[in-house]
Amino acid sequence: MIKHSNTANLVILMVSVGIIGASGYTGGELLRFLSKHPQVEVVAATSRQYAGKPLKKVHPHLQDLELEFTDNIDNIDADLIFTATPHGASMKIVPSIIEQDIKVVDLSGDYRFDDIKTYEKWYGMKQENPLDAVYGLPEIYREKIKDAQLVANPGCFPTGAILACIPLVYEKLAETFIIDSKTGVSGAGIKPTPVTHYPNCSDNIIPYNVTDHRHTPEIRQELSKVNPVKVSFTPHLVPVIRGILTTVHTFLKEDLSPDELESIYSGFYQGEPFTKIIEIGEIPRLSAVRGSNECHIGCFEIDDNGRAVIISAIDNLVKGASGQAIQNMNIMFGFDEKTSLDFPAVHP
Amino acid sequence: MIKHSNTANLVILMVSVGIIGASGYTGGELLRFLSKHPQVEVVAATSRQYAGKPLKKVHPHLQDLELEFTDNIDNIDADLIFTATPHGASMKIVPSIIEQDIKVVDLSGDYRFDDIKTYEKWYGMKQENPLDAVYGLPEIYREKIKDAQLVANPGCFPTGAILACIPLVYEKLAETFIIDSKTGVSGAGIKPTPVTHYPNCSDNIIPYNVTDHRHTPEIRQELSKVNPVKVSFTPHLVPVIRGILTTVHTFLKEDLSPDELESIYSGFYQGEPFTKIIEIGEIPRLSAVRGSNECHIGCFEIDDNGRAVIISAIDNLVKGASGQAIQNMNIMFGFDEKTSLDFPAVHP
Amino acid sequence: MIKHSNTANLVILMVSVGIIGASGYTGGELLRFLSKHPQVEVVAATSRQYAGKPLKKVHPHLQDLELEFTDNIDNIDADLIFTATPHGASMKIVPSIIEQDIKVVDLSGDYRFDDIKTYEKWYGMKQENPLDAVYGLPEIYREKIKDAQLVANPGCFPTGAILACIPLVYEKLAETFIIDSKTGVSGAGIKPTPVTHYPNCSDNIIPYNVTDHRHTPEIRQELSKVNPVKVSFTPHLVPVIRGILTTVHTFLKEDLSPDELESIYSGFYQGEPFTKIIEIGEIPRLSAVRGSNECHIGCFEIDDNGRAVIISAIDNLVKGASGQAIQNMNIMFGFDEKTSLDFPAVHP
Amino acid sequence: MIKHSNTANLVILMVSVGIIGASGYTGGELLRFLSKHPQVEVVAATSRQYAGKPLKKVHPHLQDLELEFTDNIDNIDADLIFTATPHGASMKIVPSIIEQDIKVVDLSGDYRFDDIKTYEKWYGMKQENPLDAVYGLPEIYREKIKDAQLVANPGCFPTGAILACIPLVYEKLAETFIIDSKTGVSGAGIKPTPVTHYPNCSDNIIPYNVTDHRHTPEIRQELSKVNPVKVSFTPHLVPVIRGILTTVHTFLKEDLSPDELESIYSGFYQGEPFTKIIEIGEIPRLSAVRGSNECHIGCFEIDDNGRAVIISAIDNLVKGASGQAIQNMNIMFGFDEKTSLDFPAVHP
Repeated sequence: MIKHSNTANLVILMVSVGIIGASGYTGGELLRFLSKHPQVEVVAATSRQYAGKPLKKVHPHLQDLELEFTDNIDNIDADLIFTATPHGASMKIVPSIIEQDIKVVDLSGDYRFDDIKTYEKWYGMKQENPLDAVYGLPEIYREKIKDAQLVANPGCFPTGAILACIPLVYEKLAETFIIDSKTGVSGAGIKPTPVTHYPNCSDNIIPYNVTDHRHTPEIRQELSKVNPVKVSFTPHLVPVIRGILTTVHTFLKEDLSPDELESIYSGFYQGEPFTKIIEIGEIPRLSAVRGSNECHIGCFEIDDNGRAVIISAIDNLVKGASGQAIQNMNIMFGFDEKTSLDFPAVHP
Repeated sequence: MIKHSNTANLVILMVSVGIIGASGYTGGELLRFLSKHPQVEVVAATSRQYAGKPLKKVHPHLQDLELEFTDNIDNIDADLIFTATPHGASMKIVPSIIEQDIKVVDLSGDYRFDDIKTYEKWYGMKQENPLDAVYGLPEIYREKIKDAQLVANPGCFPTGAILACIPLVYEKLAETFIIDSKTGVSGAGIKPTPVTHYPNCSDNIIPYNVTDHRHTPEIRQELSKVNPVKVSFTPHLVPVIRGILTTVHTFLKEDLSPDELESIYSGFYQGEPFTKIIEIGEIPRLSAVRGSNECHIGCFEIDDNGRAVIISAIDNLVKGASGQAIQNMNIMFGFDEKTSLDFPAVHP
Repeated sequence: MIKHSNTANLVILMVSVGIIGASGYTGGELLRFLSKHPQVEVVAATSRQYAGKPLKKVHPHLQDLELEFTDNIDNIDADLIFTATPHGASMKIVPSIIEQDIKVVDLSGDYRFDDIKTYEKWYGMKQENPLDAVYGLPEIYREKIKDAQLVANPGCFPTGAILACIPLVYEKLAETFIIDSKTGVSGAGIKPTPVTHYPNCSDNIIPYNVTDHRHTPEIRQELSKVNPVKVSFTPHLVPVIRGILTTVHTFLKEDLSPDELESIYSGFYQGEPFTKIIEIGEIPRLSAVRGSNECHIGCFEIDDNGRAVIISAIDNLVKGASGQAIQNMNIMFGFDEKTSLDFPAVHP
Repeated sequence: MIKHSNTANLVILMVSVGIIGASGYTGGELLRFLSKHPQVEVVAATSRQYAGKPLKKVHPHLQDLELEFTDNIDNIDADLIFTATPHGASMKIVPSIIEQDIKVVDLSGDYRFDDIKTYEKWYGMKQENPLDAVYGLPEIYREKIKDAQLVANPGCFPTGAILACIPLVYEKLAETFIIDSKTGVSGAGIKPTPVTHYPNCSDNIIPYNVTDHRHTPEIRQELSKVNPVKVSFTPHLVPVIRGILTTVHTFLKEDLSPDELESIYSGFYQGEPFTKIIEIGEIPRLSAVRGSNECHIGCFEIDDNGRAVIISAIDNLVKGASGQAIQNMNIMFGFDEKTSLDFPAVHP
């Protein structure tokens, strides 16, 4: 962590950052934003498969980055490391990084759970190296993130779902949430599978892990910490590259108007740099957040059964992963929270 | 209605058929199937806009059809007429066709409702010419369709939703249904709008009429006739050309296993020519019904909240419109129900 | 080969057919059409990977087929076998099938070349078992196909390209052809790869094998047999499931009008059951042949440099593969050439 | 044009900018970039249709912009105005803006032609108000742009095509260019038409204006100014939101290797901030420029007929329109050419 002086004699804090697992989509997104961060220098980007190759070999949109992938994950001299590694892998490397007094934002599911047994049940593996971590949803945990050594970056579905539900939970206005999410295919990662094969998923809508997706307990944990609720969650793969649209169906416990609902949400998220309430009459849409760190929340319609519909839209790779990770980093270092993330979405 | 003899001295019933509103997508689908129906001769296809032009001008896949569009809708000498006209338009023309003793399959919403007030409330217009009609869902009303003079062809969403829910309603296993549907863009019709503009709807998921879609009362009517239920319905436009995937979330009133659920559905639809139960472990998918008259129903998973998920897939233009209309026609004339519809879906 | 009697005492020839390599996309298409062929019984569908599993496990649109995959390719008791196997694999199995006096339609590239050295150079492997075969493009070789024991089914790009160019070659109106083709992703087969991964190929256009695609010498062979020509060919992968649109750019050697061009093509293809000339003013489009065995040819525009543009559209899996294979089978057995293929395309 | 002081006592030039025609896609892109330009204040965004409505009504990704559309185009107090108006409309408003001594970047075709007769022939209308303009392709005309009062921003196809061809023209290495371009649908503008209707253009490839597209003479003009050449151009609409991939087929007049070709291009574009040469073995791809102002050029393969293939990729709305317009603005005011445009593309 070096303090630089710029030409106008202002002191600027510069931090050095490493990315472990930099050849996937979330790694690419971290690099995309960090390459334009005025207070960050990326000192290492690791990939076992592409070690020695230039970043642009895998990330063709980053032609200007001169860095090469390395496979050395052990001696990264950095102030913070992003571990963009699969669950199970993170728990093997995060503890030693923390011991070196390097801050970590972990993008896997390994450190998201308060109760290790929940993790072990839903992820089907043993948590060998439990550590204290802060759940990195700034809208809820901003103060704790400031001082965190280890931030567990939220899952993509939980980000969109929790932000869409939690104001109602705080207000005790709803207890049962049916969350029907639609995700773009980049959420499945960079590795080709039969499901992500273009002729199979184009022109199709594919429900998966209909009642047992691992993001279910994560959503439940965060909402239930506020007040006890019942959460049912079903994701669908849709022919979209980026984005998660979450449709929350919930039965209100009080007779409210859409305007009242809207004002609860507007109040809750007032001042948030990225989470925005879409006015009644409009609807959150994926293209309006495509490539950006914004989360749009809206709809607020209520039908004659008392069912309210809340809809959120995020870019799964940005607010649902790498953008939020950088937002957490900005908070951890006291930077302006929007630094390098302050760019409008690419619509259409 | 003429009785022809084929070369083998078998008597074959030939019927003549007209299509009013033949230049839209449902008109095109009627023509696609009817052009290969061995017992049907299409004698008129109307379109005000394209009168005098050959069908292939609008339907480029029907290069072999020699017929031209006509704008004469008044004197069609046919045994049956399909009215592929918008709601509000059908009620203006169907009565005089019925008076001429011509059978009608109406694809609009005008004759689907038992209670005219429900129609008038949700469609926002007066039903000026009420008529007795049979709701054309063969799985439920096959016997009545046989003798019907006027069949009200079901809406696209109701077809997928009712077939996915009704076995549970018959068994009194569920009372509350949250129906989250995803429809391909062809469901919006052939007329371009900002919503169907490629840059707007590609790579997007667009919820619409979130709590007030006109197909809601149609679903409610058919399910409630069996047993009283609460239905909440929300459709989404998805970047798919054809198909409706319906995700039904419902809380079971009894403790059932997926296998028990599956066997209830398999029993209910046994022998149905087009509605098929997908075995547990697989999931209904749009491509498996693309271009065909099949309805696939499956999933049957139940989560730890007792929420069951039933999923159905149809092609909105076929089982959701024109295919079902021809299925109804086949029943009305005593033809084999599968005639001209007996062709597998186009997957991938 | 059995002669059945139908109920009307007409004698119908029934043939038994096997498919080696039935779990890929071309295998699925063969099954889709053959399942509705009144004179064919499919007696074997092989797949090493899925042996013992029902066909619908892989082909979800074929729910009614009871057949299971087998891995026995050696003792198929059939009148004809389709070898839907990769190049290199076909040459290992076709000779023994031919020895058993079973007819073969081979969908690989192994038997398409008159000059084995051309094959070996472009395919990078030795042709170990050369055999006499007829190139299975019915528009050109119908008479020879009738008596063929082994038909080499044309490649997908060559089908669209040859049909679009050959009338001009016969007429000696052009010598240099620049063929710029755009193919749907199903042409890459059923196996997922980084290129076919949805986030990579959606919203992208990917040129590949820009100057060295193996279909180049196949196009050259067939055109040069008529008259000497120079052919340059470049394919592009486009975000489309099915279809090849081929744009032929060629400089005319004579001063012709579009009408004259059109009439040369109309004359050449007169009476063809599947290859159709699209009238001037319209353009061939993929959706107008989607799922069907048709080839549409049109455009015929000429610019002020004397460059003519001819455009063809086929479904790469049908006229570009399995449909044409069945067309060849129909010719080989003296069936009506359109049997089981006589169904309009699925547009939109 | 005001000189502001920032907190560090640095003098920063601030300019005020207006956008006429701000409700279309190019208007949206201008706003997207300008909203983050540290030296620009947008003082007016006009739209007849949406006057009085907030920008975010039309541009849902710009939730933070407080500006409202105005329909007052006559008294915009600005240092520069972007006219994002259709051809024919620009010529009616640009002269009076120029008279007010306001700089103009015009995004229409009205001022792109040296020879008014060429314009009038291809655009089918009279150029009523000819003015001197600089053709705004910075790679070629950077020096002239610096002092221009009126910049004619290049067409989208010409940008990709000229940049891909012009090094060969300078070197006199080729004389005949066959340019086969594939464009995303946003190139057709924000107004829905039958061609841009999702069910019509999804899963399709649609050639259009095959020999008479209005961008043809623009490409010819710029290349022929360097050396006489023959240009044949054909565009295709592809199911992509953004991007133009241009495939240039040309016969080389000398025997060159791909490496030699590559080095000609690398030399030509050395130091360019946005136009980048993709190394041999890789291929330019739309996603690598999606949302960014970059132009990628590559391929450089040569077949055995001596045909070379050069491929360029741009985002039609950015380097093909609004990004290039801002690049021109930056040059006109002496700003760093990359200001507000220096953000990587959104891949995948």
